[in-house]
Amino acid sequence: MDKSRRSERMVVMTQLLSQKPRSLFALNFFSNIFGVAKSTISEDLNILRATSDHWGFGELVTVSGAAGGVKFTPKLSLLERKEFMEYLINELSKPERILPGGYLYMADLIYNPQVVGRAGKLLATIFKDIQPDYIVTVETKGIPLALMTANAFNVPLVIIRANNKVTEGSALSINYVSGSTRRIQSMSLARRALPTESKVIIIDDFMKAGGTARGIHDLMQEFRTEVLATAVMVATGEPGKKLISDYISILDLISVDTVNRKVIIEPGKWYEALN
Amino acid sequence: MDKSRRSERMVVMTQLLSQKPRSLFALNFFSNIFGVAKSTISEDLNILRATSDHWGFGELVTVSGAAGGVKFTPKLSLLERKEFMEYLINELSKPERILPGGYLYMADLIYNPQVVGRAGKLLATIFKDIQPDYIVTVETKGIPLALMTANAFNVPLVIIRANNKVTEGSALSINYVSGSTRRIQSMSLARRALPTESKVIIIDDFMKAGGTARGIHDLMQEFRTEVLATAVMVATGEPGKKLISDYISILDLISVDTVNRKVIIEPGKWYEALN
Repeated sequence: MDKSRRSERMVVMTQLLSQKPRSLFALNFFSNIFGVAKSTISEDLNILRATSDHWGFGELVTVSGAAGGVKFTPKLSLLERKEFMEYLINELSKPERILPGGYLYMADLIYNPQVVGRAGKLLATIFKDIQPDYIVTVETKGIPLALMTANAFNVPLVIIRANNKVTEGSALSINYVSGSTRRIQSMSLARRALPTESKVIIIDDFMKAGGTARGIHDLMQEFRTEVLATAVMVATGEPGKKLISDYISILDLISVDTVNRKVIIEPGKWYEALN
Repeated sequence: MDKSRRSERMVVMTQLLSQKPRSLFALNFFSNIFGVAKSTISEDLNILRATSDHWGFGELVTVSGAAGGVKFTPKLSLLERKEFMEYLINELSKPERILPGGYLYMADLIYNPQVVGRAGKLLATIFKDIQPDYIVTVETKGIPLALMTANAFNVPLVIIRANNKVTEGSALSINYVSGSTRRIQSMSLARRALPTESKVIIIDDFMKAGGTARGIHDLMQEFRTEVLATAVMVATGEPGKKLISDYISILDLISVDTVNRKVIIEPGKWYEALN
């Protein structure tokens, strides 16, 4: 076995495993495509595992037995989490982001593939022991984060629409009260979009009172779905009591002082727990 | 230099280069993080380049000079393109996708991160000589494809909203006529979302008459944007003459026969040209 062949295999395996995270690859599969013995593949995978651990890219898990193989779970390392939080807090604290009404302009961040890519990997790191069948969000601003979370879990994304769309067939609709504006709104999901009794993680960009998240939970009940977790990019500090009790916020927005142009934002409670 | 060190570097370089496609990495950067000579890094990169070429993962481009380095452009290989087209055509031809009114249910595909991930890479392959500053789409169904295209180009995504949202500050709005329904609709984009005189690629999920794409083009003019290209996942065969003249469709939907439950769909014109 010469040096360059192993180097080549490492590139290819890294690509394949990363492109399909959390998917099982049989040792035979690698053994066949490279034309080498399974024992050689095992050695390769040991190097890949140690390197991923050391550099914090993710976890290579071995599943033993006849239907066994390896799967790769991408992760955000401790250092990457720290850098990511510093980056986000620095960005979101900029006074020029303060909009009339005390809102914070975040569209550039929550639509940026590099940012939501890392955020999705972060959620897969926080929820590493959870295996959802689907990621669920409601249009519009949560879609990029939800898609990248679905990508990290390698499961399909389901998007709840604000209205029933003719191009999606028969749908279930519910009304809900937006927690902050107290307005009645509706959301709907095509019946065929989500098999009943699926396990899901709910993702959104922002949570204030939690009315939208509550609405999604209620709609999920109509599909007899098990909600494994709920996560948002940013949750406000106030009201402290949200309409749903159990959620993860990547960041907590403590206050936006429109007079002194000062934003206070900090990592969510997961941060200390994970470190 | 022992074998395992090179193997380790291959894993790390593959990860880093893939995570930030089309970004320049200086040889010094790799030389520093690994603590090896630049000549060794050059050898590593030669292996990585040859492997990426051979397996069709993408192109490793060397930029020479003082500010030089390497960047990785992910690509969909000829074989992957063929398999991807076969997969999509097989999926979309299923009669159960036909909805009342001759629509085709596509939400499961255009929201699936694996599908839009490959489609985004495909668009980056088709447009490999183009370097946009932004990818632009309009909510809702084109967002996943647009985000994954932005990810492949490693540029930010801009999402045009169907209405002006209070949380995005001052915005430019236009009215446009939906080509198929002939209804007047509006779309708007926050001023700060897109610097004037940017170069963009416009992405959407579906094009019938091209009214929406026309509207986006018009809105882009308000931002003095240069539209480098327009691409959609699916364009209909009829009407043959769209409201915009220059676009790429990954797939062309020739006909949906609701009586005989038959769908005819084929790869867009790019397919033969690229092969």
